[in-house]
Amino acid sequence: MSEDKAVGLSINTATTRLQWGLIEAAEQYARMGVAGIAPWRDQIAECGLDNAVRAVRDNGLRVTGVCRGGMFPQPTRAAFEANLDDNRRAIDEAHALEADCLVLVCGGLPEGSRDLVGARTMVGEAITVLLPEARAAGVRLAVEPLHPMYAADRNCINTLAQAVALCDTVAPDDPEGWLGIALDVYHVWWDPALADVLDAVDPVRLHAFHICDWRRTTRDLLNDRAMMGDGVADIEGIARKLGALGFNGLPEVEIFSDEWWTAAPREVVATCLDRSLGLRQILSRSGA
Amino acid sequence: MSEDKAVGLSINTATTRLQWGLIEAAEQYARMGVAGIAPWRDQIAECGLDNAVRAVRDNGLRVTGVCRGGMFPQPTRAAFEANLDDNRRAIDEAHALEADCLVLVCGGLPEGSRDLVGARTMVGEAITVLLPEARAAGVRLAVEPLHPMYAADRNCINTLAQAVALCDTVAPDDPEGWLGIALDVYHVWWDPALADVLDAVDPVRLHAFHICDWRRTTRDLLNDRAMMGDGVADIEGIARKLGALGFNGLPEVEIFSDEWWTAAPREVVATCLDRSLGLRQILSRSGA
Repeated sequence: MSEDKAVGLSINTATTRLQWGLIEAAEQYARMGVAGIAPWRDQIAECGLDNAVRAVRDNGLRVTGVCRGGMFPQPTRAAFEANLDDNRRAIDEAHALEADCLVLVCGGLPEGSRDLVGARTMVGEAITVLLPEARAAGVRLAVEPLHPMYAADRNCINTLAQAVALCDTVAPDDPEGWLGIALDVYHVWWDPALADVLDAVDPVRLHAFHICDWRRTTRDLLNDRAMMGDGVADIEGIARKLGALGFNGLPEVEIFSDEWWTAAPREVVATCLDRSLGLRQILSRSGA
Repeated sequence: MSEDKAVGLSINTATTRLQWGLIEAAEQYARMGVAGIAPWRDQIAECGLDNAVRAVRDNGLRVTGVCRGGMFPQPTRAAFEANLDDNRRAIDEAHALEADCLVLVCGGLPEGSRDLVGARTMVGEAITVLLPEARAAGVRLAVEPLHPMYAADRNCINTLAQAVALCDTVAPDDPEGWLGIALDVYHVWWDPALADVLDAVDPVRLHAFHICDWRRTTRDLLNDRAMMGDGVADIEGIARKLGALGFNGLPEVEIFSDEWWTAAPREVVATCLDRSLGLRQILSRSGA
């Protein structure tokens, strides 16, 4: 490995969630040469926000994102408002952690609903309310399009084009990119419009780059993500594109996998570092 | 039920494939008031093409499609050519059955490949070769975009926009629509661009309308399709759109489901007829 010509790596704590809590993950990641971390809110709650802040600071880690805000479409107005309050707490946490962004998994159809257009409208409405508050807190919001197989139950924002259009609608005048996108290879690798949309996007909107791989024949809708190199996604091709656009964040490994969750966590981290080296070199060269 | 104000229903034999072979399906469907059938090629092979032709003719069934041609991207030139020959046999079968179309499930990445662009190029190349032969045989080809979760292993054509663009590229001058699309609710219901693409499509390209439902939380990537009404797809909204475009085929139920495959097949058919009545009335009114 020649790490000196590569950008650093961030790891999303979901990748080792069954093995390590947030504090231990921060220590171990840093010890093994990982440069960044992206914690989930349940893990922050578990150890307490102050301890989480101390752990990332003491270990010199960059927080590439907090997972997650969102879940905006709700069956009632009261539930919609209550969920906005929860998102406000997420903004506070992202602020305290000095995170690059708060990742928004925008939410699917309210229970019993078939109204995708309505759900998508609620997403825009919620972000319109939250964006000025996030900006006041110095927190960038990152809409993460999720794979279409999650459109019903997790996220009605399902393509990069749709996420970018949402940003441009809610925040047409946003030269600093307070609203942007989190691009996850797993969710977008298949998209025939991906290259064209990336060609047209304002680079200030690129807040996060999540990596893992798509197993050729995926066996489970949730927990069968593959380690980089074990699937068929052209991860380096996407990295090349983001590099050319001047993306200056750290690539962030996020793997939900029943297999990797039973592996020795240090082996998981070492494999993440090793298998991401090529694309981190690509991002490094692009940034030079 | 008031069938008199509704267009007829077709059933794809995959829906009852574990219960009935093609001959029995044709007899039973017709006896229960089903107007059309869409056989799979393995079931045609099982009973023999002549017997299949006789069964659909004797039972007065319209063949809304033959499943399936395609699988065009191949690892070698020889395999590509061999697969074209297989597609030629599929065209012959569709011709013999006087099918509305031959459905093309275009194929995923060749084993070991990450080159989606290359795979998509091979699809266009193959259809360019086959289209004049299909036309000479009086067989319309229907590109079926498959859900993005099948992009790697089954079909690299994953959105309606992409399928329509493929048609327009391969057959820009095609006023009779020898090349068109098969729209399956299961594969496209989530697509934020669906309505706009349907607004712009030449109706002559609409060859087939497959229906089933998307279970809110899908448990299996292949065999967890839901009966109409048991999921969250806005099937009637899509039917309204197709009706407005003058679609004059029969809606075709295609359900891969470990649950429905263990049900009494007459109950499956009765449920298909019942649960499709609303959208068949919509298509009837539109056609009036």
